[in-house]
Amino acid sequence: MEKLLNRLIKENEYLVQYGKVADYIPALKNANPNEIGICIMDVEGNLYSGGDYNKKFTIQSISKVLSLMLAVMDKGEEGVFKKVDMEPTDESFNSLYKLDLPYGEKPSNPMINSGAIVTTSLIDGRGEEKFNRFLEIVRKITQDDNIIYNKEVYISEKETGDKNRAIAHILKNKKLIEEDIEDILDAYFKQCSIEVDCIDLAKIGIFFANGCKIPNTGEALCDEEIGTLVTAIMTTCGMYDFSGEYAAKVGIPSKSGVSGGILGIVPGRFGIGVYGPALDKHGNSIVGYGILKGLSKELGLSIFKSNTEGRFSCVI
Amino acid sequence: MEKLLNRLIKENEYLVQYGKVADYIPALKNANPNEIGICIMDVEGNLYSGGDYNKKFTIQSISKVLSLMLAVMDKGEEGVFKKVDMEPTDESFNSLYKLDLPYGEKPSNPMINSGAIVTTSLIDGRGEEKFNRFLEIVRKITQDDNIIYNKEVYISEKETGDKNRAIAHILKNKKLIEEDIEDILDAYFKQCSIEVDCIDLAKIGIFFANGCKIPNTGEALCDEEIGTLVTAIMTTCGMYDFSGEYAAKVGIPSKSGVSGGILGIVPGRFGIGVYGPALDKHGNSIVGYGILKGLSKELGLSIFKSNTEGRFSCVI
Amino acid sequence: MEKLLNRLIKENEYLVQYGKVADYIPALKNANPNEIGICIMDVEGNLYSGGDYNKKFTIQSISKVLSLMLAVMDKGEEGVFKKVDMEPTDESFNSLYKLDLPYGEKPSNPMINSGAIVTTSLIDGRGEEKFNRFLEIVRKITQDDNIIYNKEVYISEKETGDKNRAIAHILKNKKLIEEDIEDILDAYFKQCSIEVDCIDLAKIGIFFANGCKIPNTGEALCDEEIGTLVTAIMTTCGMYDFSGEYAAKVGIPSKSGVSGGILGIVPGRFGIGVYGPALDKHGNSIVGYGILKGLSKELGLSIFKSNTEGRFSCVI
Amino acid sequence: MEKLLNRLIKENEYLVQYGKVADYIPALKNANPNEIGICIMDVEGNLYSGGDYNKKFTIQSISKVLSLMLAVMDKGEEGVFKKVDMEPTDESFNSLYKLDLPYGEKPSNPMINSGAIVTTSLIDGRGEEKFNRFLEIVRKITQDDNIIYNKEVYISEKETGDKNRAIAHILKNKKLIEEDIEDILDAYFKQCSIEVDCIDLAKIGIFFANGCKIPNTGEALCDEEIGTLVTAIMTTCGMYDFSGEYAAKVGIPSKSGVSGGILGIVPGRFGIGVYGPALDKHGNSIVGYGILKGLSKELGLSIFKSNTEGRFSCVI
Repeated sequence: MEKLLNRLIKENEYLVQYGKVADYIPALKNANPNEIGICIMDVEGNLYSGGDYNKKFTIQSISKVLSLMLAVMDKGEEGVFKKVDMEPTDESFNSLYKLDLPYGEKPSNPMINSGAIVTTSLIDGRGEEKFNRFLEIVRKITQDDNIIYNKEVYISEKETGDKNRAIAHILKNKKLIEEDIEDILDAYFKQCSIEVDCIDLAKIGIFFANGCKIPNTGEALCDEEIGTLVTAIMTTCGMYDFSGEYAAKVGIPSKSGVSGGILGIVPGRFGIGVYGPALDKHGNSIVGYGILKGLSKELGLSIFKSNTEGRFSCVI
Repeated sequence: MEKLLNRLIKENEYLVQYGKVADYIPALKNANPNEIGICIMDVEGNLYSGGDYNKKFTIQSISKVLSLMLAVMDKGEEGVFKKVDMEPTDESFNSLYKLDLPYGEKPSNPMINSGAIVTTSLIDGRGEEKFNRFLEIVRKITQDDNIIYNKEVYISEKETGDKNRAIAHILKNKKLIEEDIEDILDAYFKQCSIEVDCIDLAKIGIFFANGCKIPNTGEALCDEEIGTLVTAIMTTCGMYDFSGEYAAKVGIPSKSGVSGGILGIVPGRFGIGVYGPALDKHGNSIVGYGILKGLSKELGLSIFKSNTEGRFSCVI
Repeated sequence: MEKLLNRLIKENEYLVQYGKVADYIPALKNANPNEIGICIMDVEGNLYSGGDYNKKFTIQSISKVLSLMLAVMDKGEEGVFKKVDMEPTDESFNSLYKLDLPYGEKPSNPMINSGAIVTTSLIDGRGEEKFNRFLEIVRKITQDDNIIYNKEVYISEKETGDKNRAIAHILKNKKLIEEDIEDILDAYFKQCSIEVDCIDLAKIGIFFANGCKIPNTGEALCDEEIGTLVTAIMTTCGMYDFSGEYAAKVGIPSKSGVSGGILGIVPGRFGIGVYGPALDKHGNSIVGYGILKGLSKELGLSIFKSNTEGRFSCVI
Repeated sequence: MEKLLNRLIKENEYLVQYGKVADYIPALKNANPNEIGICIMDVEGNLYSGGDYNKKFTIQSISKVLSLMLAVMDKGEEGVFKKVDMEPTDESFNSLYKLDLPYGEKPSNPMINSGAIVTTSLIDGRGEEKFNRFLEIVRKITQDDNIIYNKEVYISEKETGDKNRAIAHILKNKKLIEEDIEDILDAYFKQCSIEVDCIDLAKIGIFFANGCKIPNTGEALCDEEIGTLVTAIMTTCGMYDFSGEYAAKVGIPSKSGVSGGILGIVPGRFGIGVYGPALDKHGNSIVGYGILKGLSKELGLSIFKSNTEGRFSCVI
């Protein structure tokens, strides 16, 4: 398995030249596009990794998966989805124009910024509590109490966050968020600045792939159905306006972040974390996409595949 | 199993009152909203059915699944997707405005009218040949040479087809279709007018769920990968602008039609056909949605589910 | 003349029933829709008035005319129009979605909120100075040092100003405004809260109709060309998304405000102020529109009229 | 006067290099960008001209002014404006997307293609009669029975007319046009192909500037109010999505065509025809704009100008 992972890294690293590291804040701009890593965890808790799998990076938009989960845990499915839809959109991730159209009632889905600001606002707790609850769940899932957020990145996000502030004011105007805007954005910017590596992402992935149970301990953090919901929404909306093509070509429910991470879930089987900071025009890791496409093909991981030759007996 | 199917029909038939039969052409308007049917086929070719499973209705937009398949068979993935995208959209099914925006280059996906007019144009053959090829493949998949199209519906579609004509002229203007517009639309209107029942849909479903092989004969009509592609695009785009919520709540790759049919695919396991002509506001069968949601829950069919308790050993 | 004005009020007051007083802040909601006034001033400084012509109301969007003038005085035409366009738009006045589209570079024109926030930001002075400069020019034009702003309205605007804050953050994100957002919005909310009556509006109108000179004193406050520019932009953009029909039916360059005022300019001849707080669906005074349409017809005031029978010898 | 006209041509001919001749049909592509002409007619019927004022070109979109007039003559203001709005738009001239939005009810105005197809459909007569009526009015206004349409241009327009066909099908779908689409488009393409020179445009201009009366004969072809209406709509909508800036910079109600003509109206004073086939990015004659801006400034023709120093006494 690890041989396969290293081969996939080798085969796809040429893609770096076609991508571009995010540059809107200094901390992201300085990422090394040649650092590429992958880690896979199975339901038994076995880890397989390759490349720079333990390079730390900020989780960015992948955090949207967890704020959705927490919002549903805290406010219930109905409580969340009366304020955010779950439809894929051709808007870009930080778009707000749909909200401003005459028939724009709520954010399209929780995987774009406007939707994620809503889900963050729905996590229980005020001010600092909201983020503490978020951090605690990440630590629990990864079984790692050393997980922290990157203060420099957080401050940069906060300073350049005018687009997100505009979104928040529109949401407030539409009564989709209620608390103080700067408090919500603070929690949002902090959760985006949490530092993880590929192992952490693989652990988050296997948590969802395993019915919201932590593999090693078997501890269930929430209802399995929340995991199914999150996995479905990642599939239709997780890779920005490339989600459709990604589903067709890869078929692994995934969520990407602007720092170059991709979280992958193979229901019942694997959690996957990939890292490669050069991004394609949609904002997804360009090497990460290549690696996951290869991995899916080699191991037959697409959830859309009929797997007629012995799907369910498969052991790798 | 058939007990379950009949129970699900009973439990969901109250939904009829919240739906509305399509009324843009007389043939559809006269459908009886209380006729509800379902049929399931497994990979061994066993059939389970309930209600009005042998009521005939026109296939309508479900035909888009097959014109996508045929276009890819005839022109290759690249040949098709340079003319149509595969991204879900918040446009409605017969929308064209995105094509007219400065950055609107091609139809969002093959499950909306504009995309399907492109895929139909890419099926080999000119004039009558195109549709004959389409009809032949439906007959092969369903192993039923009596499948025909409904002339009355075809003529009605043709007469009221101004929106589709507008779309076709835009496509022509953008050089995304090349042949005579009325020829392409003729094939398109005819394929939409093919009459099927729930059994036929279940057979189409199992064909895809079984790696593009006909269960009884084992005959492969095309590469398994085309089936995976079609299944993925159905998941992200198949239920109009309700595809995201449908994926989250049902999790069965599906395509609906305005006459009230829904085609479902459970990869490696089942093909499903459901009928119920009362539609919700998105244009999907309102009872069909209810039944499929129930079915998915009872049998654990969502492709996003981790199925931790014995997924792959499941027998029903 | 005054007989004519009172007749026009009488003839149009029935329209009140089809309109609706603005209700987003308490101070506006409490306006009496039956209070209707009009005042006209000619280039000699003669005043003609009718109805509740001396009822005070907040100037609201009519202030956009003056912030445009001041911005051009302070930064020059080029300095202003590199940051705001001068095209009419089908957007509504507080829209921002165009700014968020991929090709949305600057506000469409200075008569919608986004454009006016830009022009206010371009008035010389920081913090309080900006508004003081604005207030001073109003006092000069109206020759009335008692003109003040309504604190209660200002505070209400500030408290409910989330949509304008969203706009300001988008503008900041696009580097179209540079100063502190709350400072700019403060000046903006204050200038909207300045209290005027129909006489004051007529004086502002005649100032522009008279080549930017104060009639009684002959003092020129700025170049005549700025007046021509402001008058043209009022014509194409001044009555929200009703500007085109208003031009065709009335033909008097005008700007309306949400409190029910309309400022009218007949170049070289008259300044007009009308008041009637019941608004039509576009946000224009419904009675004001009726009165101005009647006035234009009776006196042949449309700037689009050929006035073949003795236009230029005009006596009224 | 003619010295002035020739000077303005000289001063502005350098602009040719920044423009581009329309190239979507051969007949337009072959125009010589260095041919520049102007003609002005006053209410007494005096003609002043310069440059290539008698070069013939197809009238193109300037015909929209006359189809609007004829539609209002034949169906009344109400009959026309229940099917087309009179609001300026930020859409481009051949856009249709607004019509396809959920709240898109009718074309924004009669100066864009969709609106003009509606007004042409409202001219009395079926098939050939519609166009004959159009041609007859042009001949009457210009007092020239030799005016004809260019068959080659007409056929080219017809052959490349897919965008207009798309628009017509949308209009049909919305029941905004009722007759046979090809019949309406035929009349539309023919009227666009009528050949005129600057003198003809000046005659059309003075007709409107003179209360819809032919200067030499004094014959009134329709009510003066129709002229006021047309003039107003030209001002807010006549120069495509540059109408706002054009109003501010030139202030002469104008309509441009893709072949390089501009029709100008100075109410009560002048009719103007300008020709220069190189277009700016908005589709307006780039030299024509320059000349008209200069002319307006030199003679103080802007309808928004207060003309404090002796406006109405002016003789030239």
